[in-house]
Amino acid sequence: MSYDLWYWPGIPGRGEFVRLALEAGGIAYRDLARGEGGMSALGLDLEQPRDAPPFAPPYLLADGMTIAQTANILLFLGERHGLAPVDLEGRLWVNQLQLTIADAVGEAHDVHHPVAVGLTYEEQAAEAARAAEAFRADRIPKYLRYFERALLHHGPWLAGDRWSYADLSLFQLIEGLRHAFPKRMATTLRDCPKLTGLHAHVAALPELADYLASDRRLPFGDGIFRHYPELDAG
Amino acid sequence: MSYDLWYWPGIPGRGEFVRLALEAGGIAYRDLARGEGGMSALGLDLEQPRDAPPFAPPYLLADGMTIAQTANILLFLGERHGLAPVDLEGRLWVNQLQLTIADAVGEAHDVHHPVAVGLTYEEQAAEAARAAEAFRADRIPKYLRYFERALLHHGPWLAGDRWSYADLSLFQLIEGLRHAFPKRMATTLRDCPKLTGLHAHVAALPELADYLASDRRLPFGDGIFRHYPELDAG
Repeated sequence: MSYDLWYWPGIPGRGEFVRLALEAGGIAYRDLARGEGGMSALGLDLEQPRDAPPFAPPYLLADGMTIAQTANILLFLGERHGLAPVDLEGRLWVNQLQLTIADAVGEAHDVHHPVAVGLTYEEQAAEAARAAEAFRADRIPKYLRYFERALLHHGPWLAGDRWSYADLSLFQLIEGLRHAFPKRMATTLRDCPKLTGLHAHVAALPELADYLASDRRLPFGDGIFRHYPELDAG
Repeated sequence: MSYDLWYWPGIPGRGEFVRLALEAGGIAYRDLARGEGGMSALGLDLEQPRDAPPFAPPYLLADGMTIAQTANILLFLGERHGLAPVDLEGRLWVNQLQLTIADAVGEAHDVHHPVAVGLTYEEQAAEAARAAEAFRADRIPKYLRYFERALLHHGPWLAGDRWSYADLSLFQLIEGLRHAFPKRMATTLRDCPKLTGLHAHVAALPELADYLASDRRLPFGDGIFRHYPELDAG
């Protein structure tokens, strides 16, 4: 049994949260849009008639189902492959964390695209500069302190005594924010020892070693997390 | 047994998606932040030490658990109270739709707050005008056509032969967008007969009649969905 993953080729984006879970879980999958003609193949697949159409990538084809929305795919993988607690409280807690991570990812994207996704960064650079100021001052500390607080009663993992998909996602969020806002993250993470620890624990997971060292692990590029030096400050 | 709901008083906001599910499901709850001192009580409650702290309202206190994130609360209520299909495929489909509705809600909010949630609309009105143009031209049609397409293979409900919490949420999204962008919604909904039908079906649910006619159903006001005439056009 193998799953098929569809996501925009060329950027890690939201697909990367799914990839990390698949890779760390040792779950076989094909990354269908990687390779020659991937973008047009994805475009064609998106237009396929389906009972349960996806609004946007990423989506996973599994057991005849089409499963879209990152947090929903991870909910499925978590239940099916034991990548999250099985009890109700733990399952809801991990889903809640994942949705909060998704909110942070969306905000990080909107910093460089505050006006419209259909315009380039250059067409909204002035608005982005204003948005980045608020994101650095208020939102980065708010999110990081929240996750630090979430780890206070748990730790080293967010739930239970092993990693869940939310730990992998939080690692990826920190990676992305560090890429986009290295100066701001350096000053903010100083007050977040548990979060820093979680990032290091995930980075050192034996289950991820091959993947993180491989060329399947894409650079951030012009994706959700972008480094524009003019948008960063300590 | 009764649940406790915490949400910002004075606006329907994201709390309303939870309220609609509770009300239509005939589930007993207290709306703790409504009434005298509600805002400061909510502020104090948010600071409570908790194993599983919420990042933001809404959150539900149920059976000793604190459950946050709108889609996560609805996932819980759907499973516990039969407000969604019980089979895996149907359950994931409804969660996927809810997450897509949540994305649309977030974008609708960001139109009037494209730069920062900490600033007023007036402080970002110029940016909002640009954002609204793209939202009206691209995003409203994209979301509505998607939900119309989702209903093509289902209908009159999004999943199964009775309403689920996603139907209630889609009703509320349409209500909100109609309030904020009445001209644009009038022209766009013309091509969405199934979506228009779903909205009418939910509005006519006997389970919601008392609630929708009561003063517990708050006006949109200065919440997520706001009507600024200068941001709307057909």
